[in-house]
Amino acid sequence: MLPDPIKKFAAAFAQLPSIGLRQATRLAFHIASLSKAQIRELADAITALGTLTTCTRCFRTHLGSGDLCAICSDPTRNTGLIAIVEKETDIISLEKTRKFNGWYLLLGELHKSGELEHEQKLRIEHLKKFIAKELGGKATEIILAINPTVYGDLNAALLKKDLEPLAQTITRLGRGIPTGGEIEFADEDTLGEAIERRK
Amino acid sequence: MLPDPIKKFAAAFAQLPSIGLRQATRLAFHIASLSKAQIRELADAITALGTLTTCTRCFRTHLGSGDLCAICSDPTRNTGLIAIVEKETDIISLEKTRKFNGWYLLLGELHKSGELEHEQKLRIEHLKKFIAKELGGKATEIILAINPTVYGDLNAALLKKDLEPLAQTITRLGRGIPTGGEIEFADEDTLGEAIERRK
Repeated sequence: MLPDPIKKFAAAFAQLPSIGLRQATRLAFHIASLSKAQIRELADAITALGTLTTCTRCFRTHLGSGDLCAICSDPTRNTGLIAIVEKETDIISLEKTRKFNGWYLLLGELHKSGELEHEQKLRIEHLKKFIAKELGGKATEIILAINPTVYGDLNAALLKKDLEPLAQTITRLGRGIPTGGEIEFADEDTLGEAIERRK
Repeated sequence: MLPDPIKKFAAAFAQLPSIGLRQATRLAFHIASLSKAQIRELADAITALGTLTTCTRCFRTHLGSGDLCAICSDPTRNTGLIAIVEKETDIISLEKTRKFNGWYLLLGELHKSGELEHEQKLRIEHLKKFIAKELGGKATEIILAINPTVYGDLNAALLKKDLEPLAQTITRLGRGIPTGGEIEFADEDTLGEAIERRK
């Protein structure tokens, strides 16, 4: 009953994360109603994503001719300082603070179970080899820049155990009351952390 | 900070209904991580939507060489019987019942205010002209196949008033307890309709 191009689009896009078949079908009809120029713009935007490559050190997506991304190929960056993050957008947020001069290992989103996926295990192995080869066996610091949630804490604890021998110190991001937040509305855990980490 | 192709994709896709900038950005990174072949498949799926055309009578999206879609060009269909629908997928659902032998006017999603958009007004005008020219001024029946919600009722009432002189009868879809549903869980309105429409 559905025209073939609608079906094909829906099937392809429903495979992407956070898009269901129903939403994909409605998107298809919407896009079909756009002008030829608008449709070309969308197709070109996708094709252009194919020009991006993955940094061979940190696994970030980057637009460059070399193997390394702009951060990993920057000689002023401290290679002994490594932040492990889940998402590309987390790197962008951390870079915006201009408070971090190391490099990142992009791990991908972590499972609630604390178990690493095959690809994530490979990335951790890759990090271990880098530390052995380039840093003489010990990084100065590994920051586990993972969300401070119950599952994040579980994953961080497991990663910490695994990486303990490879860094002088393993840290996580500070916790406390967010800037602009009010003590009245902070939950007990956050407030507890804020007291302990007072300065 | 974001690579250019990621930014462009996010901007283009965030303009589509039900996709926000945040979701579009995450989609972009995901698609960038796919193989060249998978990226080409997605781009091709979009390009193929450009081959679809809009039926000049009912405004459905269709894949054909003529001006009219398969339903509107079918000589066994009763042109005096018209169902006004909001969505393409509603047409598909109604066709699946095999209980309707007329044709559809695709109006697009209606506003909660009951006001028609410019394009929707044009489609109603187009319907009026069709009835004047092809049906001698009166359709046999116009079914307002609009969702039985508060806003749907408002829109249907306004459309009914507007179309009253153009059809022998104007109806809406029957209401009652859905097949498989239980009286115990039916709301008062539905049950009231079910009693009135008993047969």
